[in-house]
Amino acid sequence: MYAVIMAGGKGSRFWPRSRNRLPKHLLDICSEKTIIQETVARMLPLTPPEKILIVTGAAHARELIAQLPEIPEENILIEPVGRNTAPCIGLAALVVRRRAGDDVMAVLPSDHRIGDEATFRRVLAAAAEVAAQGGHLVTIGIRPAGPETGFGYIERGQPVARKGEEEIFRVTSLREKPDAATARAFIAQGGFYWNSGMFIWRATTILNELASSLPDIYAGLREIDVALDTPAEAEVIAAAYGRFRSISIDYGVMEKARDVLIIPADFDWSDVGSWDALWEVSEKDGAGIAARTPGNLINVSARDCLVHSPRKLVALVGVEDLIVVETDDALLVCRRGSSQDVRKAVEALETEKRHEYL
Amino acid sequence: MYAVIMAGGKGSRFWPRSRNRLPKHLLDICSEKTIIQETVARMLPLTPPEKILIVTGAAHARELIAQLPEIPEENILIEPVGRNTAPCIGLAALVVRRRAGDDVMAVLPSDHRIGDEATFRRVLAAAAEVAAQGGHLVTIGIRPAGPETGFGYIERGQPVARKGEEEIFRVTSLREKPDAATARAFIAQGGFYWNSGMFIWRATTILNELASSLPDIYAGLREIDVALDTPAEAEVIAAAYGRFRSISIDYGVMEKARDVLIIPADFDWSDVGSWDALWEVSEKDGAGIAARTPGNLINVSARDCLVHSPRKLVALVGVEDLIVVETDDALLVCRRGSSQDVRKAVEALETEKRHEYL
Repeated sequence: MYAVIMAGGKGSRFWPRSRNRLPKHLLDICSEKTIIQETVARMLPLTPPEKILIVTGAAHARELIAQLPEIPEENILIEPVGRNTAPCIGLAALVVRRRAGDDVMAVLPSDHRIGDEATFRRVLAAAAEVAAQGGHLVTIGIRPAGPETGFGYIERGQPVARKGEEEIFRVTSLREKPDAATARAFIAQGGFYWNSGMFIWRATTILNELASSLPDIYAGLREIDVALDTPAEAEVIAAAYGRFRSISIDYGVMEKARDVLIIPADFDWSDVGSWDALWEVSEKDGAGIAARTPGNLINVSARDCLVHSPRKLVALVGVEDLIVVETDDALLVCRRGSSQDVRKAVEALETEKRHEYL
Repeated sequence: MYAVIMAGGKGSRFWPRSRNRLPKHLLDICSEKTIIQETVARMLPLTPPEKILIVTGAAHARELIAQLPEIPEENILIEPVGRNTAPCIGLAALVVRRRAGDDVMAVLPSDHRIGDEATFRRVLAAAAEVAAQGGHLVTIGIRPAGPETGFGYIERGQPVARKGEEEIFRVTSLREKPDAATARAFIAQGGFYWNSGMFIWRATTILNELASSLPDIYAGLREIDVALDTPAEAEVIAAAYGRFRSISIDYGVMEKARDVLIIPADFDWSDVGSWDALWEVSEKDGAGIAARTPGNLINVSARDCLVHSPRKLVALVGVEDLIVVETDDALLVCRRGSSQDVRKAVEALETEKRHEYL
């Protein structure tokens, strides 16, 4: 099985740690390793480094290569510009097909956190087995912890197979991020799962789907395919991406496809979408303090805070529900529950043209 | 008139800015100048630098001299160890008497903030005039803004004189810091003032009072007097201070003295005793934010905070009532109203022997 890790994320949600040159997946905010290092390490028991492809933007390739010395450099696929997931997955599928013919590829986000790696790999192996047997598009659905409005949902239909402990179902519909009432209805009804953004299929299967559902994208991919491994490769990719529209694989392919399956998964999963989400998944002390470097913390009656201060001593006195993040040039102090507004701070910096902080 | 500025303060209340080597009066937390620079500048229209004495501890003398180049070095009196205000004032009175005979000296704390300098100088000039006329001990009383329990109180008696706009009263009692009920009773009764720690008297008057009220201290002062301006000076001062007990001028002299007068003063005054007090007296923007360097602040829905971050950009997102203080090696995030607990953070650092932060 090939693994294709999509590392095109930008995002200002982890400012001041995340910057234009350092998006979330390149940050060590969840553990000692960076998130993409964790993502790669999680796959290594299933697939060797030679079969791990990473798709990223030119601006982040150098740092990504430095963080992942075990990945061969020819496995780092560089998009000249981000066009959402459909072109990204198409490009990777071309490379898999060229190198390995009709192999199964698992498409994985680079910036999620998975607590229970053994279960994750068991689910992924089952998905690969199902995907290898036919022209299925297999998705992994996360059993929802609540009526979140920040995720797309997948509705399951009839069971179609069982692989070990995993049951596989037909997908009856994919739903974009719902409003709160709709999300509550999904949960009440049952049979809905969060869309994890993880897909497993044969390279040829997804290329066929792209050809039928997104012929304009597919035309560009064919041009790229001819140029791969030739001196014209970079130029042809740049030209094709210049013409590609931005479109997600969910909207462009999955919602129209007929043979979509889902494996419901119970592993501990988070897309770690904000500082608030990071506090939720972080290990906390008895006072609810999640400190990235506990030795740097003095706590006087403080509770339920997230503190990231790699170098500086931090004293919290009498405070509750704060996010405190310190970098060499900036400090964020944010109310817990308001971390979606961190982007407003970033927007203010953009408006003030303070590029050194972006 | 001589001015004697007492700069013996230590204090951990402004941690992480204040450190063992850098007490509050040497910090620029109220303005561009340090507090002692403001204190000296405030006196210069009344008295020349040659008549300003500063009493400080050996550990802080170097920094103090660097901050006050206009003060002659022989005017910096160094105490080998702090013994509260009575020995400090006695030592300064010896020097004034030696240099200027029976001049009036104004004893002033080094670390208070005074908003209305013209009124301050008018009051001080009136006090000096009264003190010059007889053997009075003159104090400046601050009209209380409320029933504070953090100050000593002075009770006034009959009026005894008027100098321009200032009325002078006899003092009937000095009260140590009261409990809350007593403080409320003082305010309800009227005629009580906060003890500002500012005293005006002739050098000979206070030395006579020390002789009668604190004969043990006075014995040491006589030894010092003989040694002043001789090669034995430092050694004799060290020996005398080694024997001195710690005792305040209020408790040791003022409470027993018979001829104590008070000038009630209305100038804008604060002893700036904590980060909370500093927020109170600081200039604030429309959202109640007092930022030492407003250009370093990004405010997203934050209110009523104090932010001291001289170098680093600070983004406040959705927070209220915080004190945020950043230095090169430490960060304090404290609930407004809890800054008396900053000392607990300092105590924790002492317990953990993290001397680099003290």
